[in-house]
Amino acid sequence: MGRWVVIAPERAERPSAFLRPAPERDGGICPFCPGNESMTPPEVLARRDGGAWSLRVVPNRYPALRTEIQMSRAGLGMFDSMAGVGAHEVVIETSDHRATLADLPAEQIQSVFRAWQERMLDLARDIRLKSLIAFKNHGGPAGATLLHAHSQLIALPFVPDVLQAEVAASQAHFAAKERCVFCDVVAQELRDHDRVVLELPEAVVLSPWAARSPFELWILPRAHRSSFESAGAEELRAVADVLRTALRKMDVALEKPAYNLFLHTMPLREPQNDFYHWHLELKPVLTQQAGFEWASGCYINPTPPEEAASFLRQTEVFP
Amino acid sequence: MGRWVVIAPERAERPSAFLRPAPERDGGICPFCPGNESMTPPEVLARRDGGAWSLRVVPNRYPALRTEIQMSRAGLGMFDSMAGVGAHEVVIETSDHRATLADLPAEQIQSVFRAWQERMLDLARDIRLKSLIAFKNHGGPAGATLLHAHSQLIALPFVPDVLQAEVAASQAHFAAKERCVFCDVVAQELRDHDRVVLELPEAVVLSPWAARSPFELWILPRAHRSSFESAGAEELRAVADVLRTALRKMDVALEKPAYNLFLHTMPLREPQNDFYHWHLELKPVLTQQAGFEWASGCYINPTPPEEAASFLRQTEVFP
Repeated sequence: MGRWVVIAPERAERPSAFLRPAPERDGGICPFCPGNESMTPPEVLARRDGGAWSLRVVPNRYPALRTEIQMSRAGLGMFDSMAGVGAHEVVIETSDHRATLADLPAEQIQSVFRAWQERMLDLARDIRLKSLIAFKNHGGPAGATLLHAHSQLIALPFVPDVLQAEVAASQAHFAAKERCVFCDVVAQELRDHDRVVLELPEAVVLSPWAARSPFELWILPRAHRSSFESAGAEELRAVADVLRTALRKMDVALEKPAYNLFLHTMPLREPQNDFYHWHLELKPVLTQQAGFEWASGCYINPTPPEEAASFLRQTEVFP
Repeated sequence: MGRWVVIAPERAERPSAFLRPAPERDGGICPFCPGNESMTPPEVLARRDGGAWSLRVVPNRYPALRTEIQMSRAGLGMFDSMAGVGAHEVVIETSDHRATLADLPAEQIQSVFRAWQERMLDLARDIRLKSLIAFKNHGGPAGATLLHAHSQLIALPFVPDVLQAEVAASQAHFAAKERCVFCDVVAQELRDHDRVVLELPEAVVLSPWAARSPFELWILPRAHRSSFESAGAEELRAVADVLRTALRKMDVALEKPAYNLFLHTMPLREPQNDFYHWHLELKPVLTQQAGFEWASGCYINPTPPEEAASFLRQTEVFP
């Protein structure tokens, strides 16, 4: 039905491995801590100051996809398959086992973004890879299996549905209005103010119209730019600043919720354009996706975005 | 971006109500048990034999949508809204507080399907309602908030994305081949056998090609029929039979997992057609949907459907 799914048996040993959702692991030896570097595959990127590292990027030990296989597409009767060419990397965001992304200084969050950029630019040289999803699962209910702060990069040999649909909708808006739909959203939201959580000259945080879940937030740079890879240091710093404050507000207002954070940017190697606008989406895990959402693709959100934004605006955090 | 979301503040009292996913409630007085009928809104359908009921349908106490409001669409700047016209009903599947759907005799499961049909036919008389999603959340991790076995019906004033996409893909297949894509899938799967879990002359259970999550199952009647509402007693009974066995196999193989079950059928009031084929989808909750899935709309499934089907074929259950 026009849907690609990654079948990744290396990520499970056997059916019984899935009897229960895996709890977040803490205890035992952390493979992401300094001194345990040999527990991860060799690093592809690291920031070191003297001997100590502050950030490492390593291939995922249980990759959903890998680059070392032949690209092949095949039809099996009416079905289609392609080999799972791709890449799956882990960004260890800090050497501090207990620090969350919200605990890190804004410079370190900026450094995480810079690592995403560097890996994207490197992976983009493999022309079999069409798109890259950068994301972070924080906390067990959000799908994290290790506590030590990390994000993940998955490069895909196709452009996934959600990104394709978002790019197409932006193109349609631009065709009609000759303006970027995200720039239009930011302008309208800053006028209305109801759904604005944070506002800096370079970046804003909104609880979007038609938010799919309570306290869903979008983090957008004010400057129009279609690809994250080409964002400059100041832009990344501003986004790091507002993301940090938003995470800290969420921690206070919602009692340190689990969350998913992800990047939406153009497919790899696309030249800059006028219609798409890179941004981050942040979704605390407060409700459970249930049968209705699976069946319909439609979401029931009990918290209007105006209420979420107002609640977070009023939440005070230490800088 | 072409997406409808149901904002339903009546389902939450206040932001702090969402601090943690609600656990499944058990203990205290069950509003779905015999003797507590006054705890639910007045029933819209019931099966009674003498004084005792075996099934009741009641409006949801915390509806996501309701019929008693004016239909209105509006533009707010660049955004669109419509009033939450719709219906949200609960089917109490048995009077027995502890029985799961899998515990019920096949006749009672058939009776649940028949209740879905009757309510769909009744709700379809309201022409503002365009589609109906019948679904069941079983167990806390699947989103159930009450233990007593129940399913839900949500009638919507639009056709949601997932259904629209599935109908469009079926139409495209029919336009190219003049055959129903679901009939084609069933025929190919019964030839290959790798992904078949159960097979009766009237109905089959498959772990579908490109399953999005481990042990995702599709339950299909063999006879081509686009709308669930018009399925006859024998067809419903066969589907009830294979669903019951599939649930019991899952209970043994996966240790009574939480699951979501839902119905895919044509939008309301559509005449029968040659291209769409109603069916049920069953998804045990074994992995957590995480940032990657939200970001991409693409799923990583660690269990190949062939392995899931083979595991379930070999799982023996008492009839």
